[in-house]
Amino acid sequence: MSATGDAKSNYAGVFEGRIGFGQRPALILIDFVEAYFAPDSPLFADVQPALDAALDLRDAARAAAIPVIYTNVVYHPSMRDGGRFAQKIGALSSFTRGNPMGDWPRGLEPGEDELVISKQYASCFFGTSLAATLAANGHDSLVITGLSTSGCVRATCVDACQHGFIPIVVGEAVGDRHDEVHRSNLFDMNAKYGDVVSLAEAKANFAKLAG
Amino acid sequence: MSATGDAKSNYAGVFEGRIGFGQRPALILIDFVEAYFAPDSPLFADVQPALDAALDLRDAARAAAIPVIYTNVVYHPSMRDGGRFAQKIGALSSFTRGNPMGDWPRGLEPGEDELVISKQYASCFFGTSLAATLAANGHDSLVITGLSTSGCVRATCVDACQHGFIPIVVGEAVGDRHDEVHRSNLFDMNAKYGDVVSLAEAKANFAKLAG
Amino acid sequence: MSATGDAKSNYAGVFEGRIGFGQRPALILIDFVEAYFAPDSPLFADVQPALDAALDLRDAARAAAIPVIYTNVVYHPSMRDGGRFAQKIGALSSFTRGNPMGDWPRGLEPGEDELVISKQYASCFFGTSLAATLAANGHDSLVITGLSTSGCVRATCVDACQHGFIPIVVGEAVGDRHDEVHRSNLFDMNAKYGDVVSLAEAKANFAKLAG
Amino acid sequence: MSATGDAKSNYAGVFEGRIGFGQRPALILIDFVEAYFAPDSPLFADVQPALDAALDLRDAARAAAIPVIYTNVVYHPSMRDGGRFAQKIGALSSFTRGNPMGDWPRGLEPGEDELVISKQYASCFFGTSLAATLAANGHDSLVITGLSTSGCVRATCVDACQHGFIPIVVGEAVGDRHDEVHRSNLFDMNAKYGDVVSLAEAKANFAKLAG
Repeated sequence: MSATGDAKSNYAGVFEGRIGFGQRPALILIDFVEAYFAPDSPLFADVQPALDAALDLRDAARAAAIPVIYTNVVYHPSMRDGGRFAQKIGALSSFTRGNPMGDWPRGLEPGEDELVISKQYASCFFGTSLAATLAANGHDSLVITGLSTSGCVRATCVDACQHGFIPIVVGEAVGDRHDEVHRSNLFDMNAKYGDVVSLAEAKANFAKLAG
Repeated sequence: MSATGDAKSNYAGVFEGRIGFGQRPALILIDFVEAYFAPDSPLFADVQPALDAALDLRDAARAAAIPVIYTNVVYHPSMRDGGRFAQKIGALSSFTRGNPMGDWPRGLEPGEDELVISKQYASCFFGTSLAATLAANGHDSLVITGLSTSGCVRATCVDACQHGFIPIVVGEAVGDRHDEVHRSNLFDMNAKYGDVVSLAEAKANFAKLAG
Repeated sequence: MSATGDAKSNYAGVFEGRIGFGQRPALILIDFVEAYFAPDSPLFADVQPALDAALDLRDAARAAAIPVIYTNVVYHPSMRDGGRFAQKIGALSSFTRGNPMGDWPRGLEPGEDELVISKQYASCFFGTSLAATLAANGHDSLVITGLSTSGCVRATCVDACQHGFIPIVVGEAVGDRHDEVHRSNLFDMNAKYGDVVSLAEAKANFAKLAG
Repeated sequence: MSATGDAKSNYAGVFEGRIGFGQRPALILIDFVEAYFAPDSPLFADVQPALDAALDLRDAARAAAIPVIYTNVVYHPSMRDGGRFAQKIGALSSFTRGNPMGDWPRGLEPGEDELVISKQYASCFFGTSLAATLAANGHDSLVITGLSTSGCVRATCVDACQHGFIPIVVGEAVGDRHDEVHRSNLFDMNAKYGDVVSLAEAKANFAKLAG
């Protein structure tokens, strides 16, 4: 029978190793769209603090000339590009092309020279050219913010690690509709795939790289 | 602030939809290797019941002529194919080629006509030809057993969904070194990517397909 | 020293096997955009007959309720998502978002229920969710038309084969700016990856499936 | 009607741009196995000069501490992991696990610290963790040698470009069973995906990096 005590103690010494920051990061803001901020949306998650933290970190990235990448989810009106994911989660139909639920929330408008990647699945790497863009531009790491911790953030963190890029997850800048789910996924990501850091640590790192 | 009550209630009605079983499944046994069964291994997880359940389900699959696929993790002795994953988890060095920690545990020996896929990362789809094999052979679904729930099982479930194959996770046949971590990952998978079913349901489905 | 006589004789009996048509095809029209039809475009290829053949086949697909998928190439104005491909081919800057060179040529307008996939690379599978869409919708084969034979068509044919879908290339419905290059690539694709068929054969197959 | 004169003139000025060498290359030797060297093999290609050139370049890479990677093709005895590729080319059954046709030819034995990647498809990137290994180890380019020019070399060159790594193809160190097919594929790769260079240029570049 597997252990039932404190998970952190159980994992300590085997998992939770630190990779550390890379030298050439990009910053990603995952799926910060209206569907998670509009109170009447089925996907409403009450995660304004995560967006605030991400925008704060974005300022630091811009000041350090670190590229900023945004993602959103966009489906054909027929949902025929939604695959098994859309079969599982009916609420994904909020993201058909042109649906206001896919709009950027106030304060997030991407800069003209910043990349926006539209995807159909949880991982920002799946069915997109993100890994190619990171490799071709010489990046070694991806600083991760966005929504939701248990969904697209977790899937992107796992895939960053798999594709060869150090995932750095900024704790305050990712969010989930449920706090326990948020925390259990931070635990898993930090245990096995990438380092979970604080907003202050991430900003300090960007400032150092700007130096 | 995101919700703090019961996660299941919070997710109900939005997530946790059912996809249902497919018509042409394959069964996968993920990373059932000695490292998780040897008491002195850093990766020891105390998960014999998960293996027993998987072997029980394998009998049902064989009786129904449903293909069985196994995975293990194999690295070059230099670990230079371990990438960021091996940088994060030092204990992955248990899986260098020829290390007895990578052996099959008693009772698991794959049949001669059954496929074994060696991988370097968490997802059985990443860096392998699994998706191609499933598509070329006309499968629509992947019934998932193996280790560990929060690691390779979760990553494989997410990727099955992303690649176009219905993931069916068999609750008793997957395991993790820690019970709470096991349960939180079952919750997440069932919420967003695939159906978590009981061993009895999975066996009944295989029997029906055998019919 | 490798052989110098007739390539077809040299390959016969080893390569050029036939896979045959699948049972559940989708039809793809690759990169039929203005850049290849406008006489003053650097990418002008003089390939109206290929478009005419593709539109003829599209009628047959629609009549048989076979899904039609279109691709185009779209880059961020900064070209920072163009990677090594854009470093190699400067003329790809014709495909920045909104550039009229990326418009559909007369007669091609996709139907409202037909999927359009925007890509950044040669293969329609690379950096897109095409393979996931084909798998999730139960397709076993991809009937290929489009531009150019030596570029995106060849790369897509190889990737269809790799991803588990039978590639069927329609000879008259693919084109290249140079006839010899067109023919050598048809030879290679037919030798190793998929069957090259005539427009008449493809139409007859669709009619049979409609039956 | 597409052009019929000299292809090189037709492509000049639009394609055939030069990317140039990268700063952090890896060297790959693709599928140099007995099947292509044994006179009674259906895949015999008479390409000893390509192997000789590759071994010469390997010496230069080792002297410059540039990592060397090898690939071979390995299938399960049932060929059920061969997918559509094995349906198309029956002779791929030469590569079932343990078949002497998959042995290294004399002179090629990989060093103990050099990586060997086994694959099932044409591209060395498809269904393998090669891209992850290159990205995690900070490589920006892949110097390509091996067999055959029209098959695995071409597919790997296209995929290197797509995945974000500069492909450098060494003309004398790649080979094909037919000379015309060899040359037409060198033309296509040089036109659109990577630079085709001479053995002397590649050696000079490695010597410079060793400096």
